[in-house]
Parts: sequence; structure tokens; C-alpha cells
Amino acid sequence: MSVLQTLVVLSFLFTSSYGLVQDFCVGELSLPDTPAGYACKKESTVTVDDFTFSGLAAMGNTSNIIKAAVTPAFAAQFPGINGLGVSMARLDLAVGGVVPLHTHPAGSEILIVVQGTICAGFISGGGNKVYIKNLKKGDIMAFPQGLLHFQLNAGGIPALAFVSFSSQSPGLQITDFALFANDFPTELVAATTFLDAATIKKLKGVLGGTG
Amino acid sequence: MSVLQTLVVLSFLFTSSYGLVQDFCVGELSLPDTPAGYACKKESTVTVDDFTFSGLAAMGNTSNIIKAAVTPAFAAQFPGINGLGVSMARLDLAVGGVVPLHTHPAGSEILIVVQGTICAGFISGGGNKVYIKNLKKGDIMAFPQGLLHFQLNAGGIPALAFVSFSSQSPGLQITDFALFANDFPTELVAATTFLDAATIKKLKGVLGGTG
Amino acid sequence: MSVLQTLVVLSFLFTSSYGLVQDFCVGELSLPDTPAGYACKKESTVTVDDFTFSGLAAMGNTSNIIKAAVTPAFAAQFPGINGLGVSMARLDLAVGGVVPLHTHPAGSEILIVVQGTICAGFISGGGNKVYIKNLKKGDIMAFPQGLLHFQLNAGGIPALAFVSFSSQSPGLQITDFALFANDFPTELVAATTFLDAATIKKLKGVLGGTG
Amino acid sequence: MSVLQTLVVLSFLFTSSYGLVQDFCVGELSLPDTPAGYACKKESTVTVDDFTFSGLAAMGNTSNIIKAAVTPAFAAQFPGINGLGVSMARLDLAVGGVVPLHTHPAGSEILIVVQGTICAGFISGGGNKVYIKNLKKGDIMAFPQGLLHFQLNAGGIPALAFVSFSSQSPGLQITDFALFANDFPTELVAATTFLDAATIKKLKGVLGGTG
Amino acid sequence: MSVLQTLVVLSFLFTSSYGLVQDFCVGELSLPDTPAGYACKKESTVTVDDFTFSGLAAMGNTSNIIKAAVTPAFAAQFPGINGLGVSMARLDLAVGGVVPLHTHPAGSEILIVVQGTICAGFISGGGNKVYIKNLKKGDIMAFPQGLLHFQLNAGGIPALAFVSFSSQSPGLQITDFALFANDFPTELVAATTFLDAATIKKLKGVLGGTG
Amino acid sequence: MSVLQTLVVLSFLFTSSYGLVQDFCVGELSLPDTPAGYACKKESTVTVDDFTFSGLAAMGNTSNIIKAAVTPAFAAQFPGINGLGVSMARLDLAVGGVVPLHTHPAGSEILIVVQGTICAGFISGGGNKVYIKNLKKGDIMAFPQGLLHFQLNAGGIPALAFVSFSSQSPGLQITDFALFANDFPTELVAATTFLDAATIKKLKGVLGGTG
Repeated sequence: MSVLQTLVVLSFLFTSSYGLVQDFCVGELSLPDTPAGYACKKESTVTVDDFTFSGLAAMGNTSNIIKAAVTPAFAAQFPGINGLGVSMARLDLAVGGVVPLHTHPAGSEILIVVQGTICAGFISGGGNKVYIKNLKKGDIMAFPQGLLHFQLNAGGIPALAFVSFSSQSPGLQITDFALFANDFPTELVAATTFLDAATIKKLKGVLGGTG
Repeated sequence: MSVLQTLVVLSFLFTSSYGLVQDFCVGELSLPDTPAGYACKKESTVTVDDFTFSGLAAMGNTSNIIKAAVTPAFAAQFPGINGLGVSMARLDLAVGGVVPLHTHPAGSEILIVVQGTICAGFISGGGNKVYIKNLKKGDIMAFPQGLLHFQLNAGGIPALAFVSFSSQSPGLQITDFALFANDFPTELVAATTFLDAATIKKLKGVLGGTG
Repeated sequence: MSVLQTLVVLSFLFTSSYGLVQDFCVGELSLPDTPAGYACKKESTVTVDDFTFSGLAAMGNTSNIIKAAVTPAFAAQFPGINGLGVSMARLDLAVGGVVPLHTHPAGSEILIVVQGTICAGFISGGGNKVYIKNLKKGDIMAFPQGLLHFQLNAGGIPALAFVSFSSQSPGLQITDFALFANDFPTELVAATTFLDAATIKKLKGVLGGTG
Repeated sequence: MSVLQTLVVLSFLFTSSYGLVQDFCVGELSLPDTPAGYACKKESTVTVDDFTFSGLAAMGNTSNIIKAAVTPAFAAQFPGINGLGVSMARLDLAVGGVVPLHTHPAGSEILIVVQGTICAGFISGGGNKVYIKNLKKGDIMAFPQGLLHFQLNAGGIPALAFVSFSSQSPGLQITDFALFANDFPTELVAATTFLDAATIKKLKGVLGGTG
Repeated sequence: MSVLQTLVVLSFLFTSSYGLVQDFCVGELSLPDTPAGYACKKESTVTVDDFTFSGLAAMGNTSNIIKAAVTPAFAAQFPGINGLGVSMARLDLAVGGVVPLHTHPAGSEILIVVQGTICAGFISGGGNKVYIKNLKKGDIMAFPQGLLHFQLNAGGIPALAFVSFSSQSPGLQITDFALFANDFPTELVAATTFLDAATIKKLKGVLGGTG
Repeated sequence: MSVLQTLVVLSFLFTSSYGLVQDFCVGELSLPDTPAGYACKKESTVTVDDFTFSGLAAMGNTSNIIKAAVTPAFAAQFPGINGLGVSMARLDLAVGGVVPLHTHPAGSEILIVVQGTICAGFISGGGNKVYIKNLKKGDIMAFPQGLLHFQLNAGGIPALAFVSFSSQSPGLQITDFALFANDFPTELVAATTFLDAATIKKLKGVLGGTG
């Protein structure tokens, strides 16, 4: 019957093609990744659960030195966004909590405050100009790609924010961790930051660094 | 003094360059846009307020036929994200509210539920497969670029969600509005949708279409 | 001899490199695809036949409900274009034939009429504005990425057109098939399209949908 | 009334935004172009005629030394494709006609034969391997970006082909014109091609070169 | 004559198009820039001097606190690379000179040592792993986009290196300058870096910061 | 202890993610490549040696017909740049040496003269305009993507230059090698270049071509 023929004609062509080239590319984490992301999971094995994620529903553990927690939903945690060029993360800031100065090497960010008050800022590279603002519930702020930025709880109650990124894998580099939470030789840290050895060793002690 | 020389040398080089090529490109909406976004506002006139936006703080007006409101923070509303490749929107769904089937021609989407329960889904192009799930507070769901999707309030209280896009200007095309809220000739709508003229005219009446 | 040395020097360097990184990347369909396309076939096994395709030479079967056929030469059918960012398809429209409203989630399109007369149009997302025109032999029309569009035979003879896309895998989503040719629950279709259940069930009957 | 409110709410938001950021960006040729293409024409002045083009309907003038004509529909001739990443051209080959060796510096190509028989080929950069094939009506062939390729009429009747590109402005560099149709000093042409001065001067005479 | 016809036909088509869409887009610095770079200078006014630059020929002034100088050839200094996606810079390191820890927010880097010995390194974001190596004349090293890295003179003579970037405007953010060479409030620097106020004030004194 | 908790919380999240999605993607040459480059080497096996390369330190062998040598550091030779979008090469020109007319199908180039004097030039595609300049030590010149260009030693001493590309695999197509160093049939070379058979056969003899 002609209806079936339609279905045969069109479905065959495009279903077959999409068995191979899909409308999406759910990441198959067991395969090597590529510069464009993970290889695609077989479409026949993809379900709606690949496109949903509950990992941001629970508050992160803020019982730590920064009284803050960052919970990512990047491609590595949420393979359904592989190839889609967007990701999210949850930011919990206890009273007094802070996300130290950091960058996302591969993505721009938008933050939206869902609870509490957050003081956020970034520094431009060209003129070293500082852009800082107190954000209330519902406010959003943009942080251009790769620039140093921070967020801290500016209120008396725990703060909650969600952040979006222009990449499925924006990365994260926390300046203090890059300097003091590894075996970066103290004399090289000193030579490249103008910090004195005593200050460096003290922070390495706090953050678990050596050398 | 050598410190000043440093500042002179480095600041001159890079500040001058960034007076021209910036770390960001806040959109100058008064100039013509380009395929890559708006021309950049002069950096000397940029302030932190260009990077923040409060338009998503207030609930949208859901006193309408769909009992829903979509409030965008795209480059046209929030020029600070111009060139950053990411944007957001607020989604308010009153009880019984629905965002009708629609696509974003130029971006993938991630939705996070902040209040209530939302039933969301999308349809793949290849196999016309339907992916539907009920999302609770804190759940996120991804909608691959350009595919038809919808959201509706699946609970007894108003629902609130924030959505992120992989583009600063993802666009929006609501299927019903594309078909019935304009002067798309009824006979062409019929010929290209299999809907009968009576149904089309009825929906044009509801959505303000003519012809 | 110095000539041979040239060949040795240059050929070695660049042939070796291109045994690995090629000037092209013919898709190896037996390997998993990636967000950027298929993995590359070994260059040593590539022949000119990988870059040619005869699948668009024959008229598609238009003995179906839409009196039309779309024959794709996307990367899945024509692996030689893998990674090249362009693809084609053949469009056959019998008298009275129509390609129903559809989108290409991942690509813009240009159509050229080779035989007959075609009425084609698309609807913008922003203002729901309809752009429609009758195209004669040799006329071309552009359809911006992701927007709803259609083509129908506006003449008394079969029409033939070739379409080009800005992607090797532009995808295809036919609105009617997305709504009525699957198990998309009738009440959800109704809730997200304003169509009544009777209309939906009728079209599901025509297009093979259930639920 | 609530319907109007819907229209007000949604139309206002998205129409306003698309008065600025459009679903498309028809090129405004009177403004300077940018690396991403032309600035966009005001959407309010855009009509369907911006998206259609009849310049490929007529046969090109093949009464010339190559018995061939290339008629482009690039962004400069067809501003409606500005920003869409795809373009077309018409290729007319009289009997004995040839499109000399050339490259498209900024795009890959697919050719479809609509009339006659065409012998086409390209040469890879890595191994200088030649890929040649005779193409009959309906056959398509891909030419990877930037590689030298040619087309010539291999039949006894005029040949017609349409070509598509992965860029709105793929460019064209005909090797012979680059070498012999300008003031490229003969001694430099000789030094960089191994051709002797006599041959170079002869071809400059044919192609209008000097020096 | 047919030769002239060729020139007329082909030259007209393509020269006219390239008066508008060029093979290149030399930046017109007097116009506003865009997310994709500067608007293009009129091709008729472009000369070979737009594609050459002598600003890297002279040694930078290293009589400063870091005994180093970075001389950029980014699009703002060298408009001929506008739109080309690559740029360069010259790095002079006097004996004892150092380029402090910094990032390029928008580009990856390759460094080649032309004179002397340079100790260079970068830190990964994921595991805070340090990658350090002493580079001799002729050695090259890659620094992935957006990651903290440094270079210092590891020999007894002045060192010279040239660096290439994957962007025409990679940007530069020197961590110490971002923290201490502006009005970033001391208490916020302290809160977001774990440094004590005394250390911060001392470095602000050295680098010209206030607040 | 809270410090450890910080490390556990943050390190776990981001180290785990970067075991899968890295800050870089060192090419694993033993796996098939993709349109975006090679699959990534396991981060746990990556060392600083993956990001450094000494292959450009030694002068290339210029004892050949062109008295020149091109030594690439593309992704195939230097897998550390895989996915980074930039690469380099070394260019040695003995006295009288020349790099014949060639293109890089997939990248733009910047050349810097480190020793000697080089005459370099490129030809535009639109107007076949020739841009030529003599470059002294320290001068740089840009060559837009895909356009024919050349370099030759314009001084009395060996010349050395380093070139950077906007791609990790820019490719190389030397026109003479594409025409005369393979089995490209003489009659087709003649038909597509206007060269006479005798000239073609002579150059095939020099460059090792057949047919």
C-alpha cells in the first residue's frame, strides 16, 4: 500500500542513515575520545535516560576548606550532551563559601543565582580590568572564555547557582590548585609568580602540594 | 623605574591591542549584526552591567492560552554574551501550562527543573523516535539541536525551569505559530501537513492567523 | 641523484604524514561515528570510487502517499564526503507531489530546479513570516538552517530538483512523521499542538502511528 | 484576551530579538564584509526574492578559449546564502570544453552531471595521487577542499553540471590564470615552476599576462 | 577574441565577487570589530605591505622587572592575519628573565627556541599535573589552549623564541597582573586565592596595584 | 580533614572527568584518524615529551633539485598538537634554493625569517593579483589559506625560516609535483593546463612522473 511505501522509502533512507549518522551522538565513554568529543554510542542502544541526568539534584558537599562544591554535568558525567556544545554544573556555596579564582580553558560561562546572594567577578586579560557584582536570586552573569573569575557567598544563607558552558567539556583550572596542590617546584612557582618561598610552602601545606 | 617599564611595555602592547581586539565582544545592538553576531561595543564603554542581566528574575506572564511563558536571555536581550556561544532562558509553566512543540534552529538545549515537575520530550529525525521523561526538581535533560521538543507542567504546582543553549542566538520556531499564526495560505498548510482546511482555519482563529 | 633526493625528502615527509593525516577522510562506516563524522578509511584503500556516487541518477519511487521521493547522498550513503561539510540529495515530485513541512536540524539548504515547476517556501522563527515562491527550471532557492520548509510540484509534469546542504549529515525531520508516524501518545500530541484527538488519530492511521 | 496575550508575550520577545538577531543574515553588500561574511540586511526589508536566484538558469557563454563557463551563485551574487555555509555554481562545457586545473581555497565541492559526460579528477596533496573518473548524467563526484581538480567534456554533446560548495564564498584559483594572466615576473614563474621562459611567455601571450 | 572573452567571462564573475568577498580579509582597524574579527579593508586598497610585518625583527625591551619582553603580531598589530586564525609573537628573555604564569584565553600555542635555553612548562586543569621541560635551540613545545604556562631563561645568555597561536587574537592574561596590577580589592584577592593581605599588598606595591 | 575533603571533592570530579575528556588530546597514531584529528592517547600515559619535539632543530637536506627542504611538525610528526589547531614547519633554503609554487589546502600560514633573505609571494584567486616581497631577518609574512605561494632564497647565504599554520594538519600540494610527479596522463595535463606535451614529458622526466 502506498502509505507503507512512503514509510518504506523515507524510513529506509533516513533510518538507515541515522543508524550510522545520528541526530545526536551520545558519548560511548569506553572508547577513546577525540578532539571533537567521544565516539557515539550505537543509536539502537540509546534511551531517554541517556539524555537526562539527576546528578545536579543533590547539594554538593561543602564541608571543606572552601565551603563550596562544584558538581559538573559535563560530557564525562552526562554523555548525552556529547557533541552538543553545551554543559552545566551546580554550584553550592555554604555561608562564607568561595569558589577560588579559576578559569575554564575551553568555554564561556553563564551563572544564574537560584538561592542566596553571590558576589562574582572576572578580570580581563587586556587591561587587567576587574568586573565585580553582587548577584541576587534570578540574576545572571556572563564570564567570557578563559578569563580568571570567582564566586563567593555574599549573604547569610547558603547560596545555590547553576552555571552553563559553551562547551560540552569546558574544563576547570583553579589557580591555587595549579600552583599549590601538586609537585610544581617551589623555586619555579616563586620565579613565575613573585610569591616568596615561605608563602608557597605554606599554601602547599594547606592544599596538599609537595616539592 | 623597571616596574613601571614592565607596566609600560606589557600594558601598552596588550591594552592597546585589546582596545581593538577584546577578550569579549559586548554586542552593539545599534550596528548591523553579522553571521557571527553583533559588532563589538567599544571596550572603554563596557562595564560590569553589560555582563549581568536581571530579566530572568521575574516570573513570566502565564495568563495566556498556553499557561506558559518563555523569557529569553539571548544576545538581543543580553548583549554581554555576544560572541560567547551560550545563552539562557527562563521557562514558567502554570498548572496545566505547556510549551508547544518547537525547535531551536541554531542550538542545542539543556533544561534544569528548579520547581515543580515537568514532562519533557523530543523526537529524533532519523527514526521518528520519541524520547519522553518526567523531570523532577534538579533533573536536567538535553535536547539535541534542531529537533522538535516540548515541555509541560506534569504537577499540581507552577513549574520553573532554566534552559541553556549552545548558541548566543539559538532561535525559536513554535510549530503551531509557524503554521497558524501568520498568513500561510490554508491550502498550502493543508497540502504540506495533511491537515484538513477546517482544522487549519479553526487553529488560525485561535492563534491569530489569516488566509 | 638529486632529483631522487627531492622525491625522497619531500615524498617521505608528506606521504608518511598523509598516510596518517589525509587530505580527506573517507568515512569507514564499520567504525563508530564521532561528533565530527566517521573515522577515516585507510588512505591506501581509498580509490576514486569512494569520491563518486551514482545513487542520484535514478528517479526515486514516487508511488506513495506524497507522490514524492527524497534520495539522499549524505555521508552515510556517500562516505567520500565525510568531513567535507557538504552533501546533496535528489528530489522527485510527481504531478501533485509534495515534500511535507520538514526541517534539517543540522544544515542549510539550496535547491535547484532541473525539471518542472516547484512551489517552495519556508517560515522564519522570529516573526513566523512565510517566504514562498514558484521556482522554474534553473531557479535556486535557499532555506536557512533548521527552519520549517516545503516543496510541491506546481506544474503539470513531474518535477526534479537537486538540493545541497551545508553539512555532510544535515538530518531530516518531517513534522507529520514526527507527530503521527510513531508511538507519540495522542494526548501529548494534542497537548503540544492544539490538534484534537480525532484529527491526530486519523493522521496516525494514515502515517502508521500508534498510541 | 489570552490568545492575544500569547501573541504579545511570545511575539514581542522573539520578534524583537529577531529584528536584531535573525534566523538568517541576508548579506548587505554595501557594507564592509567580515571574516564571517557580510553584515546582515535589515530583516524588515528582506523578501522572498532575497532567497531566490535565477542567475544559474541561463547557459554561460562558452565561446571562449576553454569552451566553458562557470557561473557562480556565491554570497556576492546571491546574498541570501550569506552566513549559511553553502553555495552553488553552474558549469557549462561545450564540446571540447574544459575547466582548467583549479582549486577552491575555502571550500569542498560536489558536482552533479545534468547533461552529457564529464571527465573529472583531482590530485591529492600527500601522495600526489590522481583520482579521475568519467561521470555520466546523474553521477556525482566530491572534490576535497583546496585540492587541484579539473572537469572536461568527455562526450559529443554539450555538458551541464551544477556544483555545490561547503562555503558561501569558496573562492576560485585557476592555476593557469594565477601564473600567466597577470604581471607575475617571468623569471619568478620559471624559478617556482621549472617551466622555461619561452613556454611562460607563450602562455602569457595567450592568457593576457605581462612581465 | 575568444581569449579576451575568457578573461571577460571569468574575470568579471570572480573579480567582481572578490571585490566584495575576498580571498582574505585584511582588518580595517578603524571599524568596530566583530566576534569573528575586524571588518575587511577594501581589497582595492590592499597591498603586499598589509601581509608583511617587521615588528618582530627588533629585540623587545627587557630592562624591566621580569627581564623579559613579549612582542605580539596579533591581528591588532598585524591586520593582514585578520580572519586567518593564526598569529605570532616574539619572546625575549634576558639572563634571568621570565614570562610569569599566564594563559591565552583564546588560543593554543607552539614555541620554538631560536637562541639560548628556555625552561617552559604548563599545568593541566584536570589533575593539576605539571609538564616542564628544558628546551634547547630548535626545540618546540606546545601549550594547550587556556592552560597556565610559563617560560624562563634557563641559560647563561639571552634567549629568543618565537611563538605561534591558533587564533589571530589569542589574548594574554598574566596571573600576577590580573591579581596585583589593578584595583582588585585586597580582601577579595585574599578570599579567592588564600594569600594573606600582607603578601597581596606587597605585590600590589611591586606591580602597581591599588585597593 | 577538610583540606583532604576539598581535594577529594574537586579532584575526584575533575580528575575523573579528565581521564576521559582531557585538557588536550595527544594523538594516538595507531588508531584511525577522524575529520577532527586523531583519537586521544590515554591521559595516564601522556608525558611532557608528548608536547615537545626536536625534529625542527636540524637543518633539512637541501642537496636536491630545489636546493630546499621543508621539515613539518604537523600532527602526524608531533601528536601533541592534535586538536590544538596550530602547527609549524622548518624551511631551509640553500643559496639558490626555492620552494616551488604550492598551497596548503587546509590552513593559512605565517612565515618568519630567522636567517638570510627570502623572496616570498602569493597570488590571489579573485583577481589573480601577485603579492611579492623580499623579507629580511625578523620579517614575517602571511599567506591566506589555500592560495598559491612560493619562497626562494634571495640572498648569498643559506636562508632559514619557520612557518606556522592555522591547522594541526594544513596539508601541502606542490603544483609541479601534482602535475609531473605521478601518472597524471600527459594528454589530460595538457588539456587542463595549456602546456604542450613536450614540456609536460620533460618535466615528468625531471620529477619522476609517468604516463
